[in-house]
Amino acid sequence: MTFEVGYDVPAAVGMAAGQIISPALVIDLDAFERNLISMQRQVQQAGVRLRTHGKMHKSADVARAQIEIGGACGICCQKPSEAEAFARAGIKDILISNQVRQPAMIDRLARLPKMGARIIVCVDDAANIAELSDAAVRHGVEIEVLVEIDCGMGRCGVPHGAPAANLAQQILAAAGLRFSGIQAYHGSAQHIRSYAERKAKIDIAIEMVRETLGLFDSMGIQCPIVGGAGTGTYPLETASGLYTELQCGSYAFMDADYGRIEGANGHPVTTFENALFLASTVMSTAIPGRAACDAGLKSQSLDSGLPLVFGRDDVEYIGASDEHGVLSDPAGVLKAGDRLMLVPGHCDPTCNLHDWYVGVRGGLDDGVVECLWPVTARGKSF
Amino acid sequence: MTFEVGYDVPAAVGMAAGQIISPALVIDLDAFERNLISMQRQVQQAGVRLRTHGKMHKSADVARAQIEIGGACGICCQKPSEAEAFARAGIKDILISNQVRQPAMIDRLARLPKMGARIIVCVDDAANIAELSDAAVRHGVEIEVLVEIDCGMGRCGVPHGAPAANLAQQILAAAGLRFSGIQAYHGSAQHIRSYAERKAKIDIAIEMVRETLGLFDSMGIQCPIVGGAGTGTYPLETASGLYTELQCGSYAFMDADYGRIEGANGHPVTTFENALFLASTVMSTAIPGRAACDAGLKSQSLDSGLPLVFGRDDVEYIGASDEHGVLSDPAGVLKAGDRLMLVPGHCDPTCNLHDWYVGVRGGLDDGVVECLWPVTARGKSF
Repeated sequence: MTFEVGYDVPAAVGMAAGQIISPALVIDLDAFERNLISMQRQVQQAGVRLRTHGKMHKSADVARAQIEIGGACGICCQKPSEAEAFARAGIKDILISNQVRQPAMIDRLARLPKMGARIIVCVDDAANIAELSDAAVRHGVEIEVLVEIDCGMGRCGVPHGAPAANLAQQILAAAGLRFSGIQAYHGSAQHIRSYAERKAKIDIAIEMVRETLGLFDSMGIQCPIVGGAGTGTYPLETASGLYTELQCGSYAFMDADYGRIEGANGHPVTTFENALFLASTVMSTAIPGRAACDAGLKSQSLDSGLPLVFGRDDVEYIGASDEHGVLSDPAGVLKAGDRLMLVPGHCDPTCNLHDWYVGVRGGLDDGVVECLWPVTARGKSF
Repeated sequence: MTFEVGYDVPAAVGMAAGQIISPALVIDLDAFERNLISMQRQVQQAGVRLRTHGKMHKSADVARAQIEIGGACGICCQKPSEAEAFARAGIKDILISNQVRQPAMIDRLARLPKMGARIIVCVDDAANIAELSDAAVRHGVEIEVLVEIDCGMGRCGVPHGAPAANLAQQILAAAGLRFSGIQAYHGSAQHIRSYAERKAKIDIAIEMVRETLGLFDSMGIQCPIVGGAGTGTYPLETASGLYTELQCGSYAFMDADYGRIEGANGHPVTTFENALFLASTVMSTAIPGRAACDAGLKSQSLDSGLPLVFGRDDVEYIGASDEHGVLSDPAGVLKAGDRLMLVPGHCDPTCNLHDWYVGVRGGLDDGVVECLWPVTARGKSF
């Protein structure tokens, strides 16, 4: 199969960065690898494992770099079809940090260990334990299971303490399943702007985990995985001494929204660099004081706000429609054909819109395309 | 190539509607065809052409139904790679209702007429006319060109009147190009809630078109296409007697946002039915008064608001994260595994997230899967 530039793919290996067809996701490979190494040092110092979140990037190549350069033990993802895409691409240690409830998808899930992958899944319901057990027995496999506790997000998860212990015991008693620990992720805390408010939410979650682990300990229940944390809060979960696996995703790429949250002592929340960009081209300057670029709602998700124009304070992305971005350009500096590198508001749903990452080495302006990485699990939402 | 249900595709032909794997886009084929016939009657009565907007659905099969059942003369789309996908799939009359500025994409565009498709594109800049002319000459083809005028949206387009006539004359003088008319679409007016406000915007646009056509007439410039209008405003453009081609897209599927806008005399804006649904499954009921379903930001765009739960007033979709929807369920009626049919807030960017439409005949509850239609141009944003 050949891929045609401008139809199937936005670039070819060896192409100058400025020639990439837009809109396209561009990874600054140098910044990306610095982010991986920075996180690897932090988790190594803390003595925890890093199970990077593959839902952010959906790319087996990014996952492999996180494992090989960044010291990750494996990945998380959210859906069985996504796990299957990663497993087919050779990723060997996969946690579905989510519930799987559709019978057909439980059946597909139970076939994944036969592909040579370690498969872990979350539950928050006794009936789901029985469903998973039946499927594991039917396929002659063992599925590892975490009990998800609701740490305050109000989405999925049983209450901490006794309800969690109750499910753990049911998993321990179920054929074909292995109890592997708890999932304790507070997703909605990740993007809270104020450090103090964010810390207050995570302090509550940590106390829930502490109580649950205390109860497990008194009942003789081993809990090898205590999983959770994201890019916005991981130093807090790490400092607790309770979490064994961090599930950060966005640290590898960063996005505009994480750039807006405040760290301890008023510092930026992390020292991670912007490594993911949405290349866009100016397509119209017919309206005075404005310009239109070619990246709108179909090439980025605006759920967490508008993108930033990287390295520019003279122009601003002020609005989007399906295929257009509108820029304010008070001094009229933009010309048709100009390249703009946008920092997406929110990586995860933005990456899911694209089929390819274009990896650039040597800088966004003067660099060269080193690789094209497929978004392996794009659209795998089943 | 075989497509595996639950990995590549969400359903198989002949499957009961209730067995479709979620999240998945489902078309109620009966409602869809009624929408096509309703619009076909309206345009026939008004004596205008319907050039349906393929950017909404990105599907060659939907486009074919709009042409064969719905009487459309052809389609619009927004990007050259999208036009190429439609042309490869056999659609023969395609307007790119947008500017094309990247040299590589102008070159690809100029190859499309050789595929047997009529290709029309918009310009708002003299330099772009020269670029298109060079490419048309290079490839030995003729490209039809519309001058886009800014009707008040402030995105692309030259001012109406003399600047538009100036570009028209340049197109008429350019080798390889044919001047085919004007593009006069007011996109941001489509979703204005109040009928009076929406009408006021379109009245201004219509006057701009009238002045421009008067000037063209005095200069002897023929203008076979006067294109514009969307689902929210098309009766107004039609009534003007000036527009020759309506570019409605959403009428075929409808979405929650169009359901919220007000028509003349306080009636709903149109009589079109909801024909597109996002099938979702309840995956957790662990939190009292709430439920989580499996459709979040990666299977729908929330730019125009949250989805509605079709046919249910006892539960409400109140929030989304990447892979989850949170439902308020005050009476605790939802159970894990329950099927919910969501009406997406905004069709266009939602359809662009999916690879397949599942066409159901005989109702959403008891019907049968009649077809699987690929989202032909999904992700074609170049």
